Amino acid sequence: MDNIHIDSGLLGKCGEIIKGYHEPCRVALVTDYTVGALYVTTVADSLKSAGFEVFIFAFEGGEQSKNLETYGKILEFFADNEITRSDLAVALGGGVVGDLTGFAAATYMRGINYVQMPTTLLSMVDSSIGGKTSIDLDAGKNLCGAFHQPLCVISSVDTLETLDKKYYNDGVAEIIKYAMLGNDRIMQSLEKGIDCEIIKEAVKTKLSFVEGDEFDRGRRRMLNLGHTVGHAVEHASRYAIPHGHAVAIGMCAMARAGEKLGITEEGTSSELERLVSGFGLPTTTIISPDDLLNSALSDKKRSGDNIDLVFPISFGKCEIKTFPVEKLGEIISLGVK
Amino acid sequence: MDNIHIDSGLLGKCGEIIKGYHEPCRVALVTDYTVGALYVTTVADSLKSAGFEVFIFAFEGGEQSKNLETYGKILEFFADNEITRSDLAVALGGGVVGDLTGFAAATYMRGINYVQMPTTLLSMVDSSIGGKTSIDLDAGKNLCGAFHQPLCVISSVDTLETLDKKYYNDGVAEIIKYAMLGNDRIMQSLEKGIDCEIIKEAVKTKLSFVEGDEFDRGRRRMLNLGHTVGHAVEHASRYAIPHGHAVAIGMCAMARAGEKLGITEEGTSSELERLVSGFGLPTTTIISPDDLLNSALSDKKRSGDNIDLVFPISFGKCEIKTFPVEKLGEIISLGVK
Repeated sequence: MDNIHIDSGLLGKCGEIIKGYHEPCRVALVTDYTVGALYVTTVADSLKSAGFEVFIFAFEGGEQSKNLETYGKILEFFADNEITRSDLAVALGGGVVGDLTGFAAATYMRGINYVQMPTTLLSMVDSSIGGKTSIDLDAGKNLCGAFHQPLCVISSVDTLETLDKKYYNDGVAEIIKYAMLGNDRIMQSLEKGIDCEIIKEAVKTKLSFVEGDEFDRGRRRMLNLGHTVGHAVEHASRYAIPHGHAVAIGMCAMARAGEKLGITEEGTSSELERLVSGFGLPTTTIISPDDLLNSALSDKKRSGDNIDLVFPISFGKCEIKTFPVEKLGEIISLGVK
Repeated sequence: MDNIHIDSGLLGKCGEIIKGYHEPCRVALVTDYTVGALYVTTVADSLKSAGFEVFIFAFEGGEQSKNLETYGKILEFFADNEITRSDLAVALGGGVVGDLTGFAAATYMRGINYVQMPTTLLSMVDSSIGGKTSIDLDAGKNLCGAFHQPLCVISSVDTLETLDKKYYNDGVAEIIKYAMLGNDRIMQSLEKGIDCEIIKEAVKTKLSFVEGDEFDRGRRRMLNLGHTVGHAVEHASRYAIPHGHAVAIGMCAMARAGEKLGITEEGTSSELERLVSGFGLPTTTIISPDDLLNSALSDKKRSGDNIDLVFPISFGKCEIKTFPVEKLGEIISLGVK
């Protein structure tokens, strides 16, 4: 995690930090209107002081912008401002900004370097780490994308102070996921609250699953805990339910279904539900199992006629189980009822 | 070149050939209306006989379709037909079909396997080989894309019989390029006409430049001979001038500019012009140097403040020369005047 910087007050130092990875060049700084209004000047000034030439592109934030249209606008912005293969893209914002900018950087001129500057808890502990970039299709979330590692990640944790409670808790859901996957230190400190150390611990856990499996064929898939049902909830709600909230629902659903199927230790789901609701996160959804199934069927985690699902075995231990696709409806029903 | 099949009558055998690389699965077969009307039934039947399930997507051919809109339609088609990571895309057509399908395969679910079935001389000897996939932006050609190697390439040379003369010659331009880059055997047989052996020789030459430089940072860039001016010609003509014709103009322009700059041996340009025009290809353009410069400035081959240009040194020998971007206008002027 040498190239992942997590601390307070990093926005105003980002130019110097990035200079340690890349010589001064043209920078396409991508952000959304909300984050941009708060922080883009500080970041742009720091980059300029370090000798970079800065071009700012801002768009309307939110999952509904994570599509081909915004992607196309970012690419044309790169070209119009004569960004070349020796230049840089910088993503300043949450997961939507990071995923979109990362995918644009992965594909513009078949790949240019980029830097992640996450400003939400969710993007600090999850989407900025591991090099997955993506956009959504009409048919489903993250269905289009690329693997493209950022040059470095700069998480200035003071940006979390301006984060809406709902979106803050969204990140907590992924931190709870890392606890479920076996990180004891997170588990122990979770109830005390989230601080810099917990964020570092979360990033370490994610990296431990990504390492040696960059392209998501083996161990990395454990990180999908709660994500099959989670993505279905997001898609079926047309992204009204944010990612972390949907993952919380997804994890609880897998624990409940797992208990009913004899995969998960009794009592795991109630302990998880208690933790999840303690952070103001939902444990289930009123969306019908049929609607969830339809949304889930286009999910990337399918491979031919089978689907890989991550089940909690007990609190802090999970396993991947492969089921025929036909069983998915039943499992979802068991999980959300 | 073990996975590159070049022969007559391969369309009806493609199912069996592909089965040697991938177990039966769902196949998204992508083509354009023109090629589709001629060959899609033969290909689909062969795939079905070999046990594949086939879903056909066709679109209006031509460079003006190689954009984000068609790309998005192909991706949604994949999702709507439940193509998963274990499934295949097959590109049946010329360079536009191959580049688009390849880029969709590279990015759908962050990468699925695909097969190239080129049906034009240009795509057989160039775009189907080497794993470069792309779409055009408003700002320029191939500005967005990915490196993604096909599982195999199946070139059924009998499809060339239905190819319009103009598009046939388009492929000859790239074959002349390989001769210029030093392939003596191509040079000697060129005047006798194009056959299966010359196509294989052309593919070998391309592979020899791609090998060890898949990501286009070194030796592979030699293949850009004629392409800086060529792409500018295509872009400035809004793709009315097809790729090979533009590359022919670009090669002749570099030879003429090279002679005037003392880089290229005297007489090289006139020998090249004679060969090029012998195949009905243009040797220059009426587009103004200023318009060409504007189009060239957004080209991928730029790297910061410098630009790498491939110059013929003599007939059969080329070199990359780096110039400051400010010199490009002058070089273009020397080349097309």
